[in-house]
Amino acid sequence: MRPSGRAPDALRPVSIQTGFARHAEGSALIRMGGTEVLCAASVETRVPPFLRGKGQGWVTAEYGMLPRATHSRGHREAAKGKQSGRTQEIQRLIARSLRAVTDLKALGEISITVDCDVLNADGGTRCAAITGAWVALRLALEKLVRDGTLAALPLKGQVAAVSCGLTAEGAVLDLDYDEDSTAAADANFVLTAEGGIVEIQGTAEKDPFTEDQFNALMRLARTGTAELFRIQAATIEQVTRA
Amino acid sequence: MRPSGRAPDALRPVSIQTGFARHAEGSALIRMGGTEVLCAASVETRVPPFLRGKGQGWVTAEYGMLPRATHSRGHREAAKGKQSGRTQEIQRLIARSLRAVTDLKALGEISITVDCDVLNADGGTRCAAITGAWVALRLALEKLVRDGTLAALPLKGQVAAVSCGLTAEGAVLDLDYDEDSTAAADANFVLTAEGGIVEIQGTAEKDPFTEDQFNALMRLARTGTAELFRIQAATIEQVTRA
Amino acid sequence: MRPSGRAPDALRPVSIQTGFARHAEGSALIRMGGTEVLCAASVETRVPPFLRGKGQGWVTAEYGMLPRATHSRGHREAAKGKQSGRTQEIQRLIARSLRAVTDLKALGEISITVDCDVLNADGGTRCAAITGAWVALRLALEKLVRDGTLAALPLKGQVAAVSCGLTAEGAVLDLDYDEDSTAAADANFVLTAEGGIVEIQGTAEKDPFTEDQFNALMRLARTGTAELFRIQAATIEQVTRA
Amino acid sequence: MRPSGRAPDALRPVSIQTGFARHAEGSALIRMGGTEVLCAASVETRVPPFLRGKGQGWVTAEYGMLPRATHSRGHREAAKGKQSGRTQEIQRLIARSLRAVTDLKALGEISITVDCDVLNADGGTRCAAITGAWVALRLALEKLVRDGTLAALPLKGQVAAVSCGLTAEGAVLDLDYDEDSTAAADANFVLTAEGGIVEIQGTAEKDPFTEDQFNALMRLARTGTAELFRIQAATIEQVTRA
Amino acid sequence: MRPSGRAPDALRPVSIQTGFARHAEGSALIRMGGTEVLCAASVETRVPPFLRGKGQGWVTAEYGMLPRATHSRGHREAAKGKQSGRTQEIQRLIARSLRAVTDLKALGEISITVDCDVLNADGGTRCAAITGAWVALRLALEKLVRDGTLAALPLKGQVAAVSCGLTAEGAVLDLDYDEDSTAAADANFVLTAEGGIVEIQGTAEKDPFTEDQFNALMRLARTGTAELFRIQAATIEQVTRA
Amino acid sequence: MRPSGRAPDALRPVSIQTGFARHAEGSALIRMGGTEVLCAASVETRVPPFLRGKGQGWVTAEYGMLPRATHSRGHREAAKGKQSGRTQEIQRLIARSLRAVTDLKALGEISITVDCDVLNADGGTRCAAITGAWVALRLALEKLVRDGTLAALPLKGQVAAVSCGLTAEGAVLDLDYDEDSTAAADANFVLTAEGGIVEIQGTAEKDPFTEDQFNALMRLARTGTAELFRIQAATIEQVTRA
Repeated sequence: MRPSGRAPDALRPVSIQTGFARHAEGSALIRMGGTEVLCAASVETRVPPFLRGKGQGWVTAEYGMLPRATHSRGHREAAKGKQSGRTQEIQRLIARSLRAVTDLKALGEISITVDCDVLNADGGTRCAAITGAWVALRLALEKLVRDGTLAALPLKGQVAAVSCGLTAEGAVLDLDYDEDSTAAADANFVLTAEGGIVEIQGTAEKDPFTEDQFNALMRLARTGTAELFRIQAATIEQVTRA
Repeated sequence: MRPSGRAPDALRPVSIQTGFARHAEGSALIRMGGTEVLCAASVETRVPPFLRGKGQGWVTAEYGMLPRATHSRGHREAAKGKQSGRTQEIQRLIARSLRAVTDLKALGEISITVDCDVLNADGGTRCAAITGAWVALRLALEKLVRDGTLAALPLKGQVAAVSCGLTAEGAVLDLDYDEDSTAAADANFVLTAEGGIVEIQGTAEKDPFTEDQFNALMRLARTGTAELFRIQAATIEQVTRA
Repeated sequence: MRPSGRAPDALRPVSIQTGFARHAEGSALIRMGGTEVLCAASVETRVPPFLRGKGQGWVTAEYGMLPRATHSRGHREAAKGKQSGRTQEIQRLIARSLRAVTDLKALGEISITVDCDVLNADGGTRCAAITGAWVALRLALEKLVRDGTLAALPLKGQVAAVSCGLTAEGAVLDLDYDEDSTAAADANFVLTAEGGIVEIQGTAEKDPFTEDQFNALMRLARTGTAELFRIQAATIEQVTRA
Repeated sequence: MRPSGRAPDALRPVSIQTGFARHAEGSALIRMGGTEVLCAASVETRVPPFLRGKGQGWVTAEYGMLPRATHSRGHREAAKGKQSGRTQEIQRLIARSLRAVTDLKALGEISITVDCDVLNADGGTRCAAITGAWVALRLALEKLVRDGTLAALPLKGQVAAVSCGLTAEGAVLDLDYDEDSTAAADANFVLTAEGGIVEIQGTAEKDPFTEDQFNALMRLARTGTAELFRIQAATIEQVTRA
Repeated sequence: MRPSGRAPDALRPVSIQTGFARHAEGSALIRMGGTEVLCAASVETRVPPFLRGKGQGWVTAEYGMLPRATHSRGHREAAKGKQSGRTQEIQRLIARSLRAVTDLKALGEISITVDCDVLNADGGTRCAAITGAWVALRLALEKLVRDGTLAALPLKGQVAAVSCGLTAEGAVLDLDYDEDSTAAADANFVLTAEGGIVEIQGTAEKDPFTEDQFNALMRLARTGTAELFRIQAATIEQVTRA
Repeated sequence: MRPSGRAPDALRPVSIQTGFARHAEGSALIRMGGTEVLCAASVETRVPPFLRGKGQGWVTAEYGMLPRATHSRGHREAAKGKQSGRTQEIQRLIARSLRAVTDLKALGEISITVDCDVLNADGGTRCAAITGAWVALRLALEKLVRDGTLAALPLKGQVAAVSCGLTAEGAVLDLDYDEDSTAAADANFVLTAEGGIVEIQGTAEKDPFTEDQFNALMRLARTGTAELFRIQAATIEQVTRA
């Protein structure tokens, strides 16, 4: 039995609230159990130097965590004067995941930055950030279509992410903090609704794991992201109808 | 007539939601119109080096703004590698305001850090932060009393803050972003429910102003903070009763 | 009786020596008792990026303190790799004070930076810096008029600053370090010779203070700055005659 | 046909030279084709603060690249004043890989830092670093056994890494720079000689990939690391015999 | 004929004013023509970590230049967030020069930091700093003897420095800025009154120079420092008599 | 007798291997006994901002040391976030030495950066770096001539460097680490094959030294660099013939 009483293949309760960041072109406050991430997409009509004049756009991401999002207060990275390796790793992952489903040529010379800020942390913040960031990105792109900047949505797919891990209960889906901090292994899967793999990051926290164990995690990830794709789609539909 | 249609001495709608930061010993999400600041108080049972062995506690504050809390996206300070002068000025002000009403001797060798993070900005973020931070601090202190760490609340008073300014409509209370960016002068008043002045910061944004004008701003601040004291007290009462 | 034997409304001996910074377009070494600040104005014929093409100028300031300007040696900020919050707060205050009396449109696309470096500190360094910086600025502007760059002085007024505080002797003018470090409250007033208020910063160091106390500080500031305006004017006149 | 003429499942020529870093307790200069990484293990008889008094050791890694290891010169990170996100990501990966096969309890209160510096880069530097770092670590541990500090080798396994990717030629093993920069996807596999998985990082560089494609990469990785384990073992044997 | 009209072997007018830095244990404001450096020695009764418990003291130095000490304003290093290579080179040179004539064993567990801040620059600031720093150091040490902390002056000698260079007028002594910026070579000599060499730094700014030319510079340096030793000694004598 | 058994005027065994840095336009791995420095010259067809449009080129250098090049592991400067004063001093020295023998006008608007990275350190790293850097620079310039970018080699001379010092054995040539760390004085001489002096840096590590002692060091330096010039020339000849 998992500490939370969930079945091995059960996500935590998930909800996505749009519009929380009032000034952003698209925003999503995603909650996965006790984890809460505010994703805000900002549009700029210029691209970074290395892309100038290449007729394509760019999508990037930044990640942060409020100092008291966690059980005990952490350092404020702005006060310390640098972002940790973990922070940089996560924001690079979010950005790659979003770019994998964006048609940068169709976007044209536009940059979109998605800020993912963790307001409350209870495990799985990078996965929640990716799932929420896709919603924020999609809303920002829809705004660009609505206001005539773009003719069509420059999106090639729908992306979501979930963590899975090997715990005393075996392979389980969507680790919370308690499970994450004691798991023998955990893996983050960034998958698309179209069945593709965008990113896999599997890590043995203690001893190496086997290929069979890894495949079990992959199957759970398919189950979990299927549910996340449904929730993302429902969120988008609700906004669009409004 | 003010852009918002408010009377010169009218605050924006104010609300304070407690418990938003789930792990914090005390937290308050304060909304003043379109400005939204999450204040989270963290307790540590040790003091900074300069106070060690002096038998007193410390209260400090940190301030931040999510990159897309504003109309156009700002730099993330953690990515830039330093906090701006404005950020440091504000967090020093919040900290002084809280210490002015805390009995540091009675607190004992305990440190409380109040993180004030702006989720949405529409003017007056430093004042909202102070008003919310006092609630977060008070809740954290009550927890220390409840769990027996402290015998009594080490608070000497109740503090709140509001900005006032000179606009085309004359002296007005609680500037929003539109008013703030065009005001001839603005002043932040940090006052106590007991009638004291904790901090005054008045600045001519264009031409110098007169002592009469300054006094008009001070009167508005009394009106505004009276209402804020009421809302703070009601918030605390509600939590305590629960 | 004040530790220095001064009357409550007495400034410390004040003197202003011009030309100390030989290369600067204008410079003033101001002494207020044991506090000594070298103010040097530098002219550049370009403006910061955010003002380019707007047909106006800019005035800014930087502040520093020699490591051994103080009783015990402080860190060298250049060696530490960052300016403290206090330093940034002060240099922003000096800059705002100077801009409040400068006609930036009339200045045209010229930037003036006033460096204020504390050679010896005995309280009131930020106020001395403002009073000296105005003299340095004025001298630099006069040079621009003399060499034909400007047709007339782009100055709207004369600005000076003084600190006042509540000590065991009541409200007193121009705190030295001993008084400053034990005062119950202190306030910095940046006023103009024309009777206007440019900036007020009042802070309760211990308990909140009352409006009456604040008004007493304001009256002392009027007395003190009247004397400073006289000394500034005499300094300028002496240089001009030479 | 691959640009290099290699078969899809062929590694580049691999060699490992020990003792290059003369002062290090263990060192390995690993060459995989045009990629050359100097791995140097340093032993310290103390542990980082978070482990003090816990009776266990620590293994960590740092990664760097000489500015002209690459086709066009890159910035020197020391001159820029910070390590890139990529650098931090890689050094964290190397460290986790080494810890996964080290018995930290058996190591006792000893820290080992393995510096991995890329002297020449032609793709696959992080994988080469892991494979070389294990040799350097092993040699350093053997020295601790030889000098009597440790009773037995505190190693639980043998770890090596290789990159695989999807190119125009299909799934291929051990990408060089040309292949890496144009691959549709690439994955880094950190595996153990005992058959375990330590870390998997798969990334779609363009479009998402399928599970079948991923499995093909995994099979190539098994082939490639089998050869690497053989070379590591032969290197160790040669040193030991000497 | 030199631009200044000086003879090849003539120093600029030199003066040393003591006590300028009021709080410092020893201070000297040295003027060499248009170059003006404030040297302030600070005593601390502890030593840096690498010397703890070794029963010896330490002498170090820091160097800075006010932004407008120069013809055109330079960056403030504190604002830039780092000291330039030039600054670090100079402060290391000053410190080595002082340590070469200090008996660190006799000093005991005391640290002396000499801050050398350039108020006005017209060439030769590092040499002026060394010459002035020795006076500040000597005064601080005399204070330690006077107050009984030390039994005797822990000084092994008297040190001063001067620059010489090859200009269109041949080998000349004590370059000012005009000469320094056009010299074919310049050299800084740190010498002792006892006839020893502490440091020599000779640099070809354009073409390499010859040994004969170098020897000519060395002879000039002997002439110049002889005069500086006389001025230092007179300064010390004057203070001591007072 | 020197610890190494060398005669007072004997260099350590010296070798220079070209082409180690495969991507660099010129590279030299120089070994002087246990000191090993990789020098890699990179060509860019643009100049730094301060030289734009002046029709001349630039030569600069950067210096680094692998963390475990030394007896005990040092900090990685990239991780610390800044280059030490020592590092900056050395890279400025290398750059000046190379520029002293380069005809920057003849080079045209081209920049050459020579990276000098110490792989193994046993004293004399800055001198080895200069000697090796000249070879790397020369090879890069020859490549520019070969590919027709330059009509002739823009070199005015051949430069090499060696350290000498005063040890218990008297004046000795080419100090290794053991000698360097105990020498009473050491000096670095950067000389040209044409008989000129480019740079001299002599430092008393303990007591001041005499002019006679200094002259003895200079004579040794002549002997040592004569041998280095021969080795540099042979290296170049060998590459050119190949």
